[in-house]
Amino acid sequence: MEENKNIKRTDVNELGEFGLIDHLTKNFKNKNLSTVKSIGDDAAVIENGNLMTVVSTDMLVEGIHFDMMYSPLKHLGYKAVVVNLSDIYAMNAYPKQITVSLALSNRYSVEALEEIYAGIEQACKFYKVDLIGGDTTSSPKGLIISVTAIGQQERNKIVYRDGAKLGDLLCVTGNLGAAYLGLQLLEREKQIYLANPGVKPDLGDQGYLVGRQLKPEARHDMIEAFAKAELIPTAMIDVSDGLASEVFHLCKQSGLGALVEESGVPIHPDAEVQAIDFGMDPITCALSGGEDYELLFTINPKDLEKVKYLPDIYIMGEMVEKSEGIKLHTKGGNIHEIKAQGWKHF
Amino acid sequence: MEENKNIKRTDVNELGEFGLIDHLTKNFKNKNLSTVKSIGDDAAVIENGNLMTVVSTDMLVEGIHFDMMYSPLKHLGYKAVVVNLSDIYAMNAYPKQITVSLALSNRYSVEALEEIYAGIEQACKFYKVDLIGGDTTSSPKGLIISVTAIGQQERNKIVYRDGAKLGDLLCVTGNLGAAYLGLQLLEREKQIYLANPGVKPDLGDQGYLVGRQLKPEARHDMIEAFAKAELIPTAMIDVSDGLASEVFHLCKQSGLGALVEESGVPIHPDAEVQAIDFGMDPITCALSGGEDYELLFTINPKDLEKVKYLPDIYIMGEMVEKSEGIKLHTKGGNIHEIKAQGWKHF
Repeated sequence: MEENKNIKRTDVNELGEFGLIDHLTKNFKNKNLSTVKSIGDDAAVIENGNLMTVVSTDMLVEGIHFDMMYSPLKHLGYKAVVVNLSDIYAMNAYPKQITVSLALSNRYSVEALEEIYAGIEQACKFYKVDLIGGDTTSSPKGLIISVTAIGQQERNKIVYRDGAKLGDLLCVTGNLGAAYLGLQLLEREKQIYLANPGVKPDLGDQGYLVGRQLKPEARHDMIEAFAKAELIPTAMIDVSDGLASEVFHLCKQSGLGALVEESGVPIHPDAEVQAIDFGMDPITCALSGGEDYELLFTINPKDLEKVKYLPDIYIMGEMVEKSEGIKLHTKGGNIHEIKAQGWKHF
Repeated sequence: MEENKNIKRTDVNELGEFGLIDHLTKNFKNKNLSTVKSIGDDAAVIENGNLMTVVSTDMLVEGIHFDMMYSPLKHLGYKAVVVNLSDIYAMNAYPKQITVSLALSNRYSVEALEEIYAGIEQACKFYKVDLIGGDTTSSPKGLIISVTAIGQQERNKIVYRDGAKLGDLLCVTGNLGAAYLGLQLLEREKQIYLANPGVKPDLGDQGYLVGRQLKPEARHDMIEAFAKAELIPTAMIDVSDGLASEVFHLCKQSGLGALVEESGVPIHPDAEVQAIDFGMDPITCALSGGEDYELLFTINPKDLEKVKYLPDIYIMGEMVEKSEGIKLHTKGGNIHEIKAQGWKHF
């Protein structure tokens, strides 16, 4: 009857997110032939005859991933689903089912839960996925949403992070950095409100940026466009932690480096203006912001014809030798190293 | 920029667990043919050609489901896996993979996480399942573990809650109530320790009861025994909330009543003694205690031969007409109605 004491105490931050996961799971050995891919991609892959099952899971924690001061509950339910579906699409697979587990304090009423489920339902409808299970329990503090998404795809169409080849083109499906700037706007208005509760929030005409933060969409349309164009990317990942982090993953797992052209990184005009207004460099917001939920992928240059006429695809650079590192070629003509950031929630 | 306000505020307790889930998910419509069974059983079922994928998820929350004062982290990791596997076995299926998501406050060190993962690994090894993914994030307070288990079984061998028939025998795989009494012992020692931190805990020779609470096992052995005996139960559920609650589910979903013989309910001698020591009726502990993770199932009487020589199977009663309700025939010869309890965590 004593508290769990640890003789040695290493802070979780010392290892960082990716180091921590590697460290904790290094002893695990797979035992089932049906386990095709486990830890280390956007989703795991399980064999079932011809069709593979693709599984991904994510947890959203109040006070860490969202702030009830500016997150409408319906949007929150919607977003919790979308961020998981995004991981399934990032495998070039189609999500079919989700489970949703909620832990919530008694501060939340049935009506609050209804709002969350209305958002979950809206996402299920739009992305054509079924809610098949979950768990609802109480928490001593705040709200935690854990979603697991399950998808399908044929074996030879699943796209991993490790398939990029030297000379492949690095592409992205939409603009980057806007969700981060939306968050900064919401944070600014929150601080103003807390200081002067009488002042109404002024998000002006920043609806686009705020919307990218509060109600992101997953790029199911691009997966369908790839299928129509008979394009299979060589590697793919979704942009949840920021471009720098995701390029780092593709490079590390494919054993390559990358050269990114700043001029090729798509940034929305509203994000450009807002970044400058905040005294930030727009490219930094794109590289480190995160939560864009666009798809970052590589293609064989001979497939260029297939993407040329697809809307919303931006070619940002190419995959180079590992020894060349991960570099940004700025508009000013300089070459900078791109540093990957893990999460720093702890 | 204002807090989410609800004009009407219904407390979650007003609906109860099962009412709440029904209420929140009543508008959801399944869109995918592969979704064979969604909410309302121990696990969901997804079609993949011949083999069905079975999915279950559970969340354990510090301060609600476990107390760090007496839950060793390794056991906690083990138990978080086991309670999910139990749901897969309750479908007569074999778990193959799990995902584990953790949210934890900065009070937890890397060494603490290592302990949790050591327990997860031990469970994975023993039950031959693969850890295929997850999410690790921080929480403002405490530890939350969310596990999703994925299993397989052939279509015609999956057992649901709704298949019991009139006259079927109601059976259980092992003794009931011990985990609950283990929890009461731990709670008693915690209170003594809090009042007198110098006093060493005295769990005496109650290792069996405490073990049932802190390190439960899922009945994979029984699923294998069923397969060997070519027995397919007509309905099945695992005992997580207590016998009363689980009998209620089987009856409700099968459209029947049940008559349970008190003399047929297996209670371990240690549990019997401890219940009396606490001034409780042992049968009440079995009915309402929960966390036994035994399998409660029904069989066609003509299959009696198949279970007769299986160890650890107790026949407790039979399925009767719905109009007869759910009743307990006590050792004293009285008939009591059995009241189902949902969770009351809120």
